[in-house]
Amino acid sequence: MTKEQDTLFNIVLYAPDIPGNTGSIGRTCIAIGARLVLIKPYGFELTEKAVRRAGLDYWKHVEIAEYENWEDFIKGESPANDELYFYTKTSDQVYFNQEYKKNCYLIFGAETRGLPQHIFETYPERLYGVPMFSEHVRSLNLSNVATAVAYEALRTLKY
Amino acid sequence: MTKEQDTLFNIVLYAPDIPGNTGSIGRTCIAIGARLVLIKPYGFELTEKAVRRAGLDYWKHVEIAEYENWEDFIKGESPANDELYFYTKTSDQVYFNQEYKKNCYLIFGAETRGLPQHIFETYPERLYGVPMFSEHVRSLNLSNVATAVAYEALRTLKY
Repeated sequence: MTKEQDTLFNIVLYAPDIPGNTGSIGRTCIAIGARLVLIKPYGFELTEKAVRRAGLDYWKHVEIAEYENWEDFIKGESPANDELYFYTKTSDQVYFNQEYKKNCYLIFGAETRGLPQHIFETYPERLYGVPMFSEHVRSLNLSNVATAVAYEALRTLKY
Repeated sequence: MTKEQDTLFNIVLYAPDIPGNTGSIGRTCIAIGARLVLIKPYGFELTEKAVRRAGLDYWKHVEIAEYENWEDFIKGESPANDELYFYTKTSDQVYFNQEYKKNCYLIFGAETRGLPQHIFETYPERLYGVPMFSEHVRSLNLSNVATAVAYEALRTLKY
């Protein structure tokens, strides 16, 4: 797509499983001026036809990049370590009030499995937690948590 | 349900249309320690069976209140005006960095129609906007925006 404005930051889904969540996060990306980066494998087929079937007729406006795996993502984007923000419920470093950088990468794991082990080993200081206070919920919906984090990054960058 | 902890605040859905969004917001409520207040009419049947069909097996843990209409909500909850926060894309008063109050009400309209006209007339100073920068998206997904707002309220209250 033609860029309408500079990308504010990137929302990265690492091996997403549920097409509706990816679509919904795409909608957030358009609204906020973020780029959507998808790292394979996906739990669904990423074709416009498939996405349209889910009713996502705004999908063509998503600024999107796809990578075959984590290594290709690192090669293709060359991010500095402090541009990477990984979200997991197991980190005590709360995601609020962080110094988000322009063009940074907000990275989310798969709906059920979360981030893969190699991330925890390679980037222990870049893990951020989204507070949850009940043992009755294992996780939030992925598109909900990605949108909450994206708006917090927007707040610290622009407001 | 038995309250596990004091309610932090209330997420109010005024005439919600899509059961999956209500369910997903319920999950956010459990995670965050918020109460879910639903004002009729709904675009779906709110029975545990119906909600379970949507895969929401944590629904029984949602602390929930239901009202027949807006007047009953006001009678039943007796909120002060400055405990009411209405979210709409048409307000220039951005929802970031507001002084959210404990036990306040974060209120969202229907997915397609938004808030009804009487709210705009009665509470013009209590309207808050969620920034969006693209003409390609009319709105965010309701559960996404409600979760983003709830976490911002949590941030200002607790962090």
